[in-house]
Amino acid sequence: MIILYSDDHRQQAGRAELNDGRLVPCHERPERAEMVLARARQMALGPLRPPSLLDEAPILRVHDKAYVEFLKTAWDQWVVEHGDWDALPLNWLAPNMHRRVVPESIDGKLGYYSFDAGTPITEGTWRAALAAASCAVTAADLVSSGDRASFALVRPPGHHAGQAFYGGYCFVNNAAVAAQRMLDGGAERIAILDVDYHHGNGTQEIFWERDDVLFVCVHADPRQEFPYYSGHADERGGGRGEGFTLNLPLPWGTDWPAYAEALSIAASRIQEFTPDALVVSLGADTYEGDPISRFRLTMEDFPRIGAMIERIGLPTCFVMEGGYAVDALGVNIVNVLTGFEGR
Amino acid sequence: MIILYSDDHRQQAGRAELNDGRLVPCHERPERAEMVLARARQMALGPLRPPSLLDEAPILRVHDKAYVEFLKTAWDQWVVEHGDWDALPLNWLAPNMHRRVVPESIDGKLGYYSFDAGTPITEGTWRAALAAASCAVTAADLVSSGDRASFALVRPPGHHAGQAFYGGYCFVNNAAVAAQRMLDGGAERIAILDVDYHHGNGTQEIFWERDDVLFVCVHADPRQEFPYYSGHADERGGGRGEGFTLNLPLPWGTDWPAYAEALSIAASRIQEFTPDALVVSLGADTYEGDPISRFRLTMEDFPRIGAMIERIGLPTCFVMEGGYAVDALGVNIVNVLTGFEGR
Repeated sequence: MIILYSDDHRQQAGRAELNDGRLVPCHERPERAEMVLARARQMALGPLRPPSLLDEAPILRVHDKAYVEFLKTAWDQWVVEHGDWDALPLNWLAPNMHRRVVPESIDGKLGYYSFDAGTPITEGTWRAALAAASCAVTAADLVSSGDRASFALVRPPGHHAGQAFYGGYCFVNNAAVAAQRMLDGGAERIAILDVDYHHGNGTQEIFWERDDVLFVCVHADPRQEFPYYSGHADERGGGRGEGFTLNLPLPWGTDWPAYAEALSIAASRIQEFTPDALVVSLGADTYEGDPISRFRLTMEDFPRIGAMIERIGLPTCFVMEGGYAVDALGVNIVNVLTGFEGR
Repeated sequence: MIILYSDDHRQQAGRAELNDGRLVPCHERPERAEMVLARARQMALGPLRPPSLLDEAPILRVHDKAYVEFLKTAWDQWVVEHGDWDALPLNWLAPNMHRRVVPESIDGKLGYYSFDAGTPITEGTWRAALAAASCAVTAADLVSSGDRASFALVRPPGHHAGQAFYGGYCFVNNAAVAAQRMLDGGAERIAILDVDYHHGNGTQEIFWERDDVLFVCVHADPRQEFPYYSGHADERGGGRGEGFTLNLPLPWGTDWPAYAEALSIAASRIQEFTPDALVVSLGADTYEGDPISRFRLTMEDFPRIGAMIERIGLPTCFVMEGGYAVDALGVNIVNVLTGFEGR
């Protein structure tokens, strides 16, 4: 399968995230993509291509315009107010606070448009996010025009980013951009399968009231795990979208048999939806060695995930999400893709 | 006037808060109360008394029971999961996330019950907060039983804490506890005047739908300043409480003439309400030397604040809030009180 990749991902290289009450080096770092790229080459997964165009128009199909403007300008305003250091927000909306007025000061804007203290905005954030989304767009276009599969080897990841918020290392929702791109290209129904360890709260939020995008997510139970306030089994979509969100939360310690059962339910629901194509939010933080996650999948399980996705029988656009056991990330991500290819 | 004070405030001594993208030493620290205490003694402001009782019942009159349980147990759960270091949350609710389910894990609980990354929970947080609220209760009781004024010399401060959330260095809303205590003791109407630099979003939230508590707040415009998403002039209360919240936001750089004008409007509204007594949320971060604030009040202005409050003509319970120019804090806070006493 063709691999979409841009070196611009390196422009997002944050210094620190807040974790366990401390500022620690960012888990989401350039080496992640480089490990996957090296392994993809080693396994001859497929030819590498840059995105065909760096264009924010497809991003604006799923994100608010004011939010995108914020992403583009936040760093410059931050530097004026605080100097040349990663931008992290310091507070958020408490109950009964409201989003009627966008604050003027950068700290107010950061909190307004974010939901965590682990996602630094840096000088290159927008450039990296634009390149990642553009890779996803090109990957979607390949599938739309007949490829059985494509792989957007991207970071920063996307599935925690909503219409107007960032967080969880995500700024632009690459998978959502890809799905919308296929619809705009003529598809009638697109399914998104999210196999990242964490709930894809941003993707859910973007398509919550839509019946042309089915969002199916297998993830750690939000009672136990980030993002905590989204991803419960009873969240099923709203309005026209009711029934077009399927959350399959699993507890800490989940191993392959329980995971495979959830994935099988996910696959059935996707087939029932009869979509034109599938977008996969592909994280490998379900791996037992992941430093910030608590599932128990082994290296041998990732080809099985790929094989199960292949059996859904749909043209499939893979978009890379999380996975923080950096040394093993290349093997695990590429194993899903070679598993999909049946080798 | 009698000063209510407990050494237990020292139990809240956080190590770091997130500010400008960095973890910096906490601005809200024990020296604050000690500077005010030393100055109060120097000026012979009045006799010192401990709270008459350490009792959480008055706290539960304005805070949710589950939230108070969380405050009492959070540190122990944090230590089990993360070790003996200040507890800071890492994420919060994004738009369309919800508060239906309280997470089981401590990180999820911290974000559920908070709105910033600058308010560490430590081993002694609950003990310090309980002592502060108990001082406020005793100060309220003194006013209820006939004293012209009392002063709860307390920290951690309280006015950012809501029914079920902490943040802005605040855990229990001492001023709200004091106001409710007076109502429970027979008062029909209580006014709260908040002259801290920051909007008292917690107090506003607690009494939003109440017509027996008037909340009047003079503060930095939330377009520019923390807490950003609360404190606009058009927030006037809801339901029965509509019209019983008055916000008077002022821009960065406000000096005495503009401040005095707002305070005069506040005083008129309070007199019109004809309350039985007044609670003052007394911060001194309006001072020009405050390291995290941007008003331009000078040392000479603080006695004037006290004199204007005195002219409202009500039995008055002062409850200490913010102020982070520690060296000047004692003088500025006590200047308000001696100004009130006309000396």
